Amino acid sequence: MTKPQKVRPYLTTRSLLPENQETPIQFINNDSVENQLFFRRNHFTYPTLSYSNYWLPINGVVSAPLLLSMQDILQYPSKTVEVVLECSGDKRNLFEPKIFGEQWEKGAISQGKWKGVPLRTLLELSGIGEGAKEVVVEGYDYGLRTDLDEVYTYTRSLPIEKALHQDTIIAYEYNNQPIPFKHGYPLRLIVPQWYAMASVKWIKQISVINTTFTGPFQTIDYMYYPNKDNDQNAFPVTAININSTIQKPLDMEKINTGVHLIKGIAWTGKGVITKVEISMDDGNTWSNAGILPGKNVGYGWVSWSFEWNISEKGEYTIKSRATDSFGQIQPNLPFWNKKGYGYNAIDKIKVKVE
Amino acid sequence: MTKPQKVRPYLTTRSLLPENQETPIQFINNDSVENQLFFRRNHFTYPTLSYSNYWLPINGVVSAPLLLSMQDILQYPSKTVEVVLECSGDKRNLFEPKIFGEQWEKGAISQGKWKGVPLRTLLELSGIGEGAKEVVVEGYDYGLRTDLDEVYTYTRSLPIEKALHQDTIIAYEYNNQPIPFKHGYPLRLIVPQWYAMASVKWIKQISVINTTFTGPFQTIDYMYYPNKDNDQNAFPVTAININSTIQKPLDMEKINTGVHLIKGIAWTGKGVITKVEISMDDGNTWSNAGILPGKNVGYGWVSWSFEWNISEKGEYTIKSRATDSFGQIQPNLPFWNKKGYGYNAIDKIKVKVE
Repeated sequence: MTKPQKVRPYLTTRSLLPENQETPIQFINNDSVENQLFFRRNHFTYPTLSYSNYWLPINGVVSAPLLLSMQDILQYPSKTVEVVLECSGDKRNLFEPKIFGEQWEKGAISQGKWKGVPLRTLLELSGIGEGAKEVVVEGYDYGLRTDLDEVYTYTRSLPIEKALHQDTIIAYEYNNQPIPFKHGYPLRLIVPQWYAMASVKWIKQISVINTTFTGPFQTIDYMYYPNKDNDQNAFPVTAININSTIQKPLDMEKINTGVHLIKGIAWTGKGVITKVEISMDDGNTWSNAGILPGKNVGYGWVSWSFEWNISEKGEYTIKSRATDSFGQIQPNLPFWNKKGYGYNAIDKIKVKVE
Repeated sequence: MTKPQKVRPYLTTRSLLPENQETPIQFINNDSVENQLFFRRNHFTYPTLSYSNYWLPINGVVSAPLLLSMQDILQYPSKTVEVVLECSGDKRNLFEPKIFGEQWEKGAISQGKWKGVPLRTLLELSGIGEGAKEVVVEGYDYGLRTDLDEVYTYTRSLPIEKALHQDTIIAYEYNNQPIPFKHGYPLRLIVPQWYAMASVKWIKQISVINTTFTGPFQTIDYMYYPNKDNDQNAFPVTAININSTIQKPLDMEKINTGVHLIKGIAWTGKGVITKVEISMDDGNTWSNAGILPGKNVGYGWVSWSFEWNISEKGEYTIKSRATDSFGQIQPNLPFWNKKGYGYNAIDKIKVKVE
């Protein structure tokens, strides 16, 4: 007799050059997304680099520039953080009016355990020079920006306070394995609580500067532009917005009368999730969903669930709304911005009960 | 140095129980979709069956019932057909108003080469009895239909003329390999020109009947219901509607000024594709796309392309519209029906030229 067939979800392909693929978030059942289902978001084709001869330079406004080997890095006390990494373009395809660019649905988000050495440890080793304002992290990935007609590496800076935060790490493991190449091997910056554009992959060099970094990936891209027709009042994308996603049932699913477990995740960039509310009537009335006690700590998402006993046939609009410890709550409407970042409106699906 | 990373598209997951996954059709570049990227559409969990002891019964209104082994079937003259298989729910998610059910986008379609023995050959062997009207093909897959509160196998019938068509085959190979289990191993009915619900997988038995088959997969499902509020004027889903899909550029893509190759596919269930037109101005003016000569024969799709030289920045709505040898042409609006089958409106994407 034939054996039972394996059935598993796959990444959803958005583009191949560069590779952008989305996590099938509705089908993720655990708190550590496996490598194959971790969303992939690239600005360029994959870089090449030398594993056997890998060195990490730390330079700029420092007392003593360093050139660290992997062996050096592995000897410092390590730290493991469970972190949500969410692309700032996650849910872009839900904005109205529609926004051009990668049409991410709800799966440009994943999480898992990153292990590495705090960036602070390395900066204390090099010594931070006077007037240091930012720490610039450059990746090995590069390519032509057609808007500027010039080749750039993917490079971003962090304010010095964020760089020195105890949980901002230079990671070398993901879920107890070396970081998969597509996610930044051998070293990746992990910046908890910020959108994932900050977590630079394939680190080439770390530089302390006493000025404000003005690279295009933080002065052109990853800026909120509130107006459709001009670039006025722009401000940078940084912390993750309070958010939630319904994983089950699926949008436009037909279900039977009876008891259904509504489930999903919720996350935020500042503080922790304190409440997730569910509405079965398009937002007229709300009930509290259950959150596993002790899970709303750290930088991960919380899983929530709600038992729905539905006896009346019909069409229902189900909504989820998260609140965090800073009192932030998901809005009814997202903050529309020209490049489509930071969507975090109340999540919404429809089902038909038959 | 690291080797170049493989970048490939994946199936898009719609549901896991049963397994429904969509071909990433925008990223398919050839006329024979490989097994891993062939869309999967199931009504139930996968069946189990015995390979080593596989027999195909042919019975009912026949002169002499047959029980054929795989060896028997392999000895008859074979036929290879290149066939589009399209789920009748393909593009369901484009209907307005929205329709509940599997939210297929544009990828519930694939094609390749199927090899097998014509069903006609087997029916001539058994002899067709007097009054034969339909040929019923039953699959090994089965499960509970909650609407009827009863267990059914997946079973469909064909009118006797379609069953006897020279290109309706009992297939045992796909693209020169045994049919992959998820696509119907060891034997699958292939019905060219009809939507793929007709191409029953994992064949368990073939029965000739002198009545009209009334199984739920052709009297409840796979019927066009034109009205939202009642089941009047329903009629069965059979032949594939004339259709086309733009593969490149992607919907909502940002592109630069210059020359771009617009490409896609077009297919129909009756006759062959004779023309594909492209509009860059939301349907105001149309140009003919190029079709490779000699490709618009048989039951496959045709690939088409059009070179677009665009110097003016702005937002553009690109449309494609196919015509076939029976004069059928894609409509502006789809034929809305309650279960969402047969969507074939003019295809449409938007791009922004920067």
